[in-house]
Amino acid sequence: MVVDGLMVCRWDQGIFEEMHAAGITAANCTVSIWDDFRETMENIASFKRWFDEHDDLIRPVETTDDIRRAKDEGRVGIIIGFQNLGAVEGRLSYLRLFHELGLRIAQLAYNTQNLIGAGCYESRDGGLTELGREVVSSMNELGVLVDLSHVGKQTSKDAIECSTRPVAYSHTCPAAVHNHPRNKTDEEMRFIAEHGGFVGVNILPWFLRADGEATLADFVDAVEHTLNVAGEDHVGIGTDFMQGHGADYLAYLRSHQGRGPLITPLPDQPLKQTPEGLERVSDFPQITEAMERRGWSEERIRKVLGENWLRLLREVWGA
Amino acid sequence: MVVDGLMVCRWDQGIFEEMHAAGITAANCTVSIWDDFRETMENIASFKRWFDEHDDLIRPVETTDDIRRAKDEGRVGIIIGFQNLGAVEGRLSYLRLFHELGLRIAQLAYNTQNLIGAGCYESRDGGLTELGREVVSSMNELGVLVDLSHVGKQTSKDAIECSTRPVAYSHTCPAAVHNHPRNKTDEEMRFIAEHGGFVGVNILPWFLRADGEATLADFVDAVEHTLNVAGEDHVGIGTDFMQGHGADYLAYLRSHQGRGPLITPLPDQPLKQTPEGLERVSDFPQITEAMERRGWSEERIRKVLGENWLRLLREVWGA
Repeated sequence: MVVDGLMVCRWDQGIFEEMHAAGITAANCTVSIWDDFRETMENIASFKRWFDEHDDLIRPVETTDDIRRAKDEGRVGIIIGFQNLGAVEGRLSYLRLFHELGLRIAQLAYNTQNLIGAGCYESRDGGLTELGREVVSSMNELGVLVDLSHVGKQTSKDAIECSTRPVAYSHTCPAAVHNHPRNKTDEEMRFIAEHGGFVGVNILPWFLRADGEATLADFVDAVEHTLNVAGEDHVGIGTDFMQGHGADYLAYLRSHQGRGPLITPLPDQPLKQTPEGLERVSDFPQITEAMERRGWSEERIRKVLGENWLRLLREVWGA
Repeated sequence: MVVDGLMVCRWDQGIFEEMHAAGITAANCTVSIWDDFRETMENIASFKRWFDEHDDLIRPVETTDDIRRAKDEGRVGIIIGFQNLGAVEGRLSYLRLFHELGLRIAQLAYNTQNLIGAGCYESRDGGLTELGREVVSSMNELGVLVDLSHVGKQTSKDAIECSTRPVAYSHTCPAAVHNHPRNKTDEEMRFIAEHGGFVGVNILPWFLRADGEATLADFVDAVEHTLNVAGEDHVGIGTDFMQGHGADYLAYLRSHQGRGPLITPLPDQPLKQTPEGLERVSDFPQITEAMERRGWSEERIRKVLGENWLRLLREVWGA
């Protein structure tokens, strides 16, 4: 059972084939970041079409039973996820439509302020807004996991405290390993875990090392650190694989609303998007091998690779 | 079991209470006519909210079992319907999203030409378009009833022939009773019935009589004529109740795309929207009484009031 808590690839048949060959049981697949209501509906409609066209490779996931079915059927379970609730455009009624169409994991804000709360690159964070509290409450009721990876510190704290179901940093790295605005301190990781929450560890080289020259070993080090801080039952993987996208996509992600000025400067030279030894989605089995080489118990490996995610999702989704 | 094949009221608690008191088991409730994709999504979202807020009065219907449940629970089953597939905006992928959100009955075009086919007020009707054929095929596959009440003659004929499932004039009157562009000739009624299809009879006074001074008796006459032409198993009721809307709404309906020039001139004086003796939704039981006064068999009354609709919907929806 292998669950990837965040992938933001350029979705197409090739990626689905590679996820399938890599033995991924289920993945949280981003369909909305800067997309508005309409564009997000388009993206979901594409996945509905792909569920038919590629039903030998993928299947929709709306419950944890669907993840178990994906495993039994030898298909990749697709969890529809947002990295930004901007697509809801301030209307709770839209959140409900998205849930009915399959949305199961949603980040409250992406890097910057939105109607719900602050992103992690805002210099000020006034916390969860009034609407944000309504949104979290509605997500609790519907059964949508609250994701805080790109969310500001105060907004994250508020969401952790106000959510009646566990929440997650689905894809982040320990700030103790590399101090980066997207990474989380030991204190933050402990706080989310103490509230029943979760940390998925990210593979992006620029979060793992200041020089961006990370390897698979650096990633496994980051997972080990996270396990020590958050506890063995509260940690999983959220790779953030962006396979298929070029440098223009990174510029899009780093811009205000995907089209405004840059939120943070782009690097002079394009950064490596994956660590050495884990270059592509097809290298996923290398993670397991690296863990085995470290002498981790089978139980620990199973938990981190998928079982912890499964338990969390069952708690949040209710099925 | 009482099924109303078309209502286009100003939806609110008051209407739901009146439908409930009138003993309506299920009704095809219009949520889109000139509304675009986004506005239609808003309208569906409103119904989702009402399903919660008024769950003592109404419940969603997505299968005929849901209609039976509505009967058992003493609630009104709401079938989400469109009177125009304009909201799909030419994208089959959107049709699928709407179906997943509950759409079960959809008219191909409303009065005028759209991307799918011609409306009944077009002077020329080139028939079902290429896209229209794809739409009908997709509706057959998803299980959405094709409604042709406001559709042009050639487009209707094409749809009846190309649909692999029965189709309906959900709310119309016999042209033999009053020759009006919205009414259907005996030949057209026979043709749809011979293809397994259906005619729901409409109460609007201006379709029942040239002078617009129709009574409940005129409506029952129209049902009798339709039964004689289409056969006892192919006829039901589709009132077209517009309760709660004013004259401005009729002007909106009669305009191109709801905002352009008028399609047909408006009457000098506002027309009566309902026949004498059947003024309001709460008068629905008067229909049964009038049928009983005519000496109809209980079997015939049961069929026309709801059982014929139920059988048709089961054939189309598959459940």
